[in-house]
Amino acid sequence: MCPSRIPDGKQRGWIVPIGGAEDKESRRQILKRFVKLCGGRDAEIVIIPTASRKLDTGARYQDLFERLEVGHSTIVDFATREDGQRDEYLRAIENASGVFFTGGNQLRISTILGGTAAAKLIRNRNAQGMHVAGTSAGASILSEHMIAFGKEGSSPRAGSVRLAPGLGLTNRFIIDQHFRQRDRLGRLVAALAYNPFAIGIGLDEDTAAFIGPDETHEVEGTGGVTVVDASRVSFSSVDAVTEGQPICILGLIVHVLTAGATFNLHTRQASSTALVQLRD
Amino acid sequence: MCPSRIPDGKQRGWIVPIGGAEDKESRRQILKRFVKLCGGRDAEIVIIPTASRKLDTGARYQDLFERLEVGHSTIVDFATREDGQRDEYLRAIENASGVFFTGGNQLRISTILGGTAAAKLIRNRNAQGMHVAGTSAGASILSEHMIAFGKEGSSPRAGSVRLAPGLGLTNRFIIDQHFRQRDRLGRLVAALAYNPFAIGIGLDEDTAAFIGPDETHEVEGTGGVTVVDASRVSFSSVDAVTEGQPICILGLIVHVLTAGATFNLHTRQASSTALVQLRD
Repeated sequence: MCPSRIPDGKQRGWIVPIGGAEDKESRRQILKRFVKLCGGRDAEIVIIPTASRKLDTGARYQDLFERLEVGHSTIVDFATREDGQRDEYLRAIENASGVFFTGGNQLRISTILGGTAAAKLIRNRNAQGMHVAGTSAGASILSEHMIAFGKEGSSPRAGSVRLAPGLGLTNRFIIDQHFRQRDRLGRLVAALAYNPFAIGIGLDEDTAAFIGPDETHEVEGTGGVTVVDASRVSFSSVDAVTEGQPICILGLIVHVLTAGATFNLHTRQASSTALVQLRD
Repeated sequence: MCPSRIPDGKQRGWIVPIGGAEDKESRRQILKRFVKLCGGRDAEIVIIPTASRKLDTGARYQDLFERLEVGHSTIVDFATREDGQRDEYLRAIENASGVFFTGGNQLRISTILGGTAAAKLIRNRNAQGMHVAGTSAGASILSEHMIAFGKEGSSPRAGSVRLAPGLGLTNRFIIDQHFRQRDRLGRLVAALAYNPFAIGIGLDEDTAAFIGPDETHEVEGTGGVTVVDASRVSFSSVDAVTEGQPICILGLIVHVLTAGATFNLHTRQASSTALVQLRD
């Protein structure tokens, strides 16, 4: 889906993809920052554990958010497509300052929520200022084009990635998560080779991109965020290679960002200014 | 070691790093091309199995080269540092049109051959036109700075790579091999972060970079060659991070080349012209 138009005088809420396995016990930098963004003690967070098949995923995050002294949190577990129209669930999203998608399988979110009133409402509310975070599968779903599944390994190969429509909060990037831990550069590059308009964002575990209303994203957490900018690609053989063959792609620009470094999705400029200040 | 000066009126021989596990049974594109380069039926190839601890590695390659109708091949197994001064061995290199380093452990080659007359002779003879190929560990050893060992994983981390002096046929690149198969982008980027002057070359298995006297390398084989050009890096945090921490590095240029594509190590330009011609 395409992103909602941002109403005049409004600012889009933050979009926060997290690479999975975020710290839940010690420093909890990512969850803390999300809670603060949503208003802390005044926050109203809706937890959507739809991606997960575990019964306690929602409750586990509710407990985490309570320990971080969130004002109020609600679990909204969309289990069927009918749930995507339920007034009670829509009302919870209507009143939320933030939505949090848990991990699991991103295709569960897209098959259950895609095209429902709830998906549309999350897009609209984000365009009006509600913040949306997601971890692992919950990160993948945030963008218009989502990596549904794919093979792992550093070099891009034809057919190594399958895209599916995501929730569409933004169309500026394609997300991949557990990036370093599962060796996913190849499939991210393969996804960009199809159409270099988007920016590839590979999130390591316990690492998040906090994407502000101005399209600048700042890195939080203990790992790296690999940003792949294909806008200056001079050649890609993706149209000519057959399944399993390596893809030739020339002229990618790659940045590896760590906590404090930023990247602007609009200007495509990376900056280490904040990182250098942190250090000094 | 630094590369030898190329004598007036001479052309450096080709340097051919191979990513390991090159096809030995069916199309054998890489080995065939190397044999042709060395003169085919007139070729005189010296096989150096020093990196390997297996007793039959040299004989196996001799058999392979014989089946490819090489004029003549000799196994020169440097087993001790004294071997690096043996007249008989030096004479074999003196008469060779090509040298082939097998796989194994690159530190075995560097500890046994480093600083010997044999190492110097290989450098001199390469500068005068003798071709030198190496697979896996034999590829790593070819350059001035070699990756001795390191951790695997896509994001670069401090301490994830250890460099050692290599054979020094060239100082233009740092090689890594089994690239896709062993997820080595992070350690290659970490190596470049120390000093961006060199170009990182990540070779997939059954894939080689044929580097000509004009510093243009052409890809041969069934995988990809990931070229990482750090010359325009605007920031790297490698001086400030501690062991195991992720490295922030902004502004890498990355090309993934497949068979037929080229990259010039001097101008740092990638080209797909030959690849497009192959296709048409």
